[in-house]
Amino acid sequence: MAVGLKSPGNLLVVEGISLSACSAGIYVNKKRNDMTLLQLQEGTTVAAVFTRNRFCAAPVTVARQHLDETNPRYLLINAGNANAGTGEQGINDARTLCNRLADMCGCGGNEVLPFSTGVIGEYLPLEKMGAALEPLVKGLSANNWLTVAEAIMTTDTIAKASSLRCEVGGKTVTFTGITKGSGMIKPNMATMLAYVATDASVEKAILQQALNEAVNQSFNRITVDGDTSTNDACVLMATGAAGNKTICSTDGEDYRAFVTALVSLCSELAQAIVRDGEGATKFVTINVRNGASQPDCLAIAYQIAHSPLVKTALTASDANWGRILAAVGNANASNIDINTLTLWLDDVCIVENGQRAAGYTEARGKAVMARAEIAVVVDLNVGNAEETVWTTDLSHEYIKINAEYRT
Amino acid sequence: MAVGLKSPGNLLVVEGISLSACSAGIYVNKKRNDMTLLQLQEGTTVAAVFTRNRFCAAPVTVARQHLDETNPRYLLINAGNANAGTGEQGINDARTLCNRLADMCGCGGNEVLPFSTGVIGEYLPLEKMGAALEPLVKGLSANNWLTVAEAIMTTDTIAKASSLRCEVGGKTVTFTGITKGSGMIKPNMATMLAYVATDASVEKAILQQALNEAVNQSFNRITVDGDTSTNDACVLMATGAAGNKTICSTDGEDYRAFVTALVSLCSELAQAIVRDGEGATKFVTINVRNGASQPDCLAIAYQIAHSPLVKTALTASDANWGRILAAVGNANASNIDINTLTLWLDDVCIVENGQRAAGYTEARGKAVMARAEIAVVVDLNVGNAEETVWTTDLSHEYIKINAEYRT
Repeated sequence: MAVGLKSPGNLLVVEGISLSACSAGIYVNKKRNDMTLLQLQEGTTVAAVFTRNRFCAAPVTVARQHLDETNPRYLLINAGNANAGTGEQGINDARTLCNRLADMCGCGGNEVLPFSTGVIGEYLPLEKMGAALEPLVKGLSANNWLTVAEAIMTTDTIAKASSLRCEVGGKTVTFTGITKGSGMIKPNMATMLAYVATDASVEKAILQQALNEAVNQSFNRITVDGDTSTNDACVLMATGAAGNKTICSTDGEDYRAFVTALVSLCSELAQAIVRDGEGATKFVTINVRNGASQPDCLAIAYQIAHSPLVKTALTASDANWGRILAAVGNANASNIDINTLTLWLDDVCIVENGQRAAGYTEARGKAVMARAEIAVVVDLNVGNAEETVWTTDLSHEYIKINAEYRT
Repeated sequence: MAVGLKSPGNLLVVEGISLSACSAGIYVNKKRNDMTLLQLQEGTTVAAVFTRNRFCAAPVTVARQHLDETNPRYLLINAGNANAGTGEQGINDARTLCNRLADMCGCGGNEVLPFSTGVIGEYLPLEKMGAALEPLVKGLSANNWLTVAEAIMTTDTIAKASSLRCEVGGKTVTFTGITKGSGMIKPNMATMLAYVATDASVEKAILQQALNEAVNQSFNRITVDGDTSTNDACVLMATGAAGNKTICSTDGEDYRAFVTALVSLCSELAQAIVRDGEGATKFVTINVRNGASQPDCLAIAYQIAHSPLVKTALTASDANWGRILAAVGNANASNIDINTLTLWLDDVCIVENGQRAAGYTEARGKAVMARAEIAVVVDLNVGNAEETVWTTDLSHEYIKINAEYRT
């Protein structure tokens, strides 16, 4: 039941990228595509950010290493099994699949980046997955973005993808990105899985810088349940086919135009994850402004976003603003004062100077809380810093989904 | 639906303490006792710890100040309204009630400590509460512990109280304690509300030290939903009626005997709060051992205790141990290594060296997860530190309670 989110519209081909998906039968109880391959034309630069969970999954370890060693030519992704908590065997399994694909395609095993998402603690079904490699290679096509966006889903209810075009150095540059994720979502450096391709020409180090900038304003500002996954990864690929003068510095207009477009696309994808958050009935923007520092603002925004009491009040459309106030007070923020605090729900001022605003009525609070999309604005009035975080409510459906995830 | 928790048994009179409860009509839709008075005989020493929520409620501010200024003679407690987020008026209201009671009893207003629990953001119904003071004073009796334990409840489903006796310096000393709290529970220095009385004779500074020790092993080690209330308070009163030689140092056997008994009582009360946690179907002990430091162990224990994914797996009796592993990896701990980690659910070893234990089967995991009381033991195998935290699962009932709290 995604909030304000439709199936992706027209997805643009990114010259230099081919894709395919097929069913390897990783999901035993349902027939669906669960393996995906991306082929990048030679000369494509690749940047990535990965989970900061200390117990990262085997494919994250392997992908990180391969990306350090090479300019990758293939991304191999599976859903239904996270290959996390699988120790040495998990690492070997990921490498085995990379090597088998590499043999088939005539490249090195470390030119393949592996990614997995799904249940933690089970070994990959290597036979089934190996048998899927040939159909994947045969199926490669530039037009498969939507099919692939669907094949990487787990508890997602809707595929998440978007395209846009912008001008960089007088050339039209195309971006298409896909992402998945619905629970265990509080990305730290990346989301569950996101892949963004562009035909722009960008040097690898600059591409990484651009990705870091974009992720910090998008995927690293969303949370569904505060649980950072073991498998988060976000990959940015630049094929260079657009023919723009290669961006090789973070100064100048070209880089700025590129990053602006990238932030826009990543924000849309990141917010799509929240809109399709497990059990979400509300899409909530939490904006903390005029704080003493950005860490203060971010700590407060996340404290509100993670409070089960605030989340259940949102589910119930109950303007129980005392819970928001209590969450602000609990945040690990160094410089706040209840007497200067103002709280808004959309256009309704609820709290002024730390107590109920003069013009506030319960009826106005109820009306605004009933909206499917709500902004919670906390004005600290002690400085100039600002941060925004996007989140969902906590509904019966969230518990149903997570209590029944493996059954 | 409290887990493994029965109505309090025989509660012992504590000489020097009288109590009463009555209905002031703070709860508009139901008839129940909602105001409570405790009278302490002259010479009673009092220690207290309060919430560390930065936006603490008005009664917390006033009680803290009064405790600094005097040896309190009265504790005045109401349920149904937290008097938090009420600004200057909230402070004045709390003081007004203290002064009216003081006039009636012939003491100073600052010899009364006020406490409130309930909905945040509404002003106290002063008239109703003022009218209740006379019946409260008239009703004082040494035998009212259970009545008072019931009168301070909010979403609690069962009253929480306990008594015990121990020997201190050759004298028999009696303790009786009551507490309340079921949601917005992650006490920081105290729980929602807890009152422990003893007839031991203890100097004020030493009493505070004993309370700090006990709280850090009991109320400060429980969590239901990770939300620290604005109104937490825990009060320890020592009347001296037992006639023991006054404890005036933290050295020596007497202090040790006193603290041991106090820790035992506070642990029972704190765990009672968890057992009656909102929507609780499981009582979960999370023990993290052989860590590099106590902060590491505590961070990991709380990360597990607060993970909605772990909590919903507990609700479903699903041995989805990957979620526990992911939570450990997300904790802000400086020294952990997945390759040395062992995970137990009660007597079942699930994970050894970071991956599924050799003898583990899904059937054994399911059987242990089905128990109403479960210990999650994380052995980090990197040092000697250990911490334990008690928590509950996250059930549909939690959401139901918190979505409907104000209706």
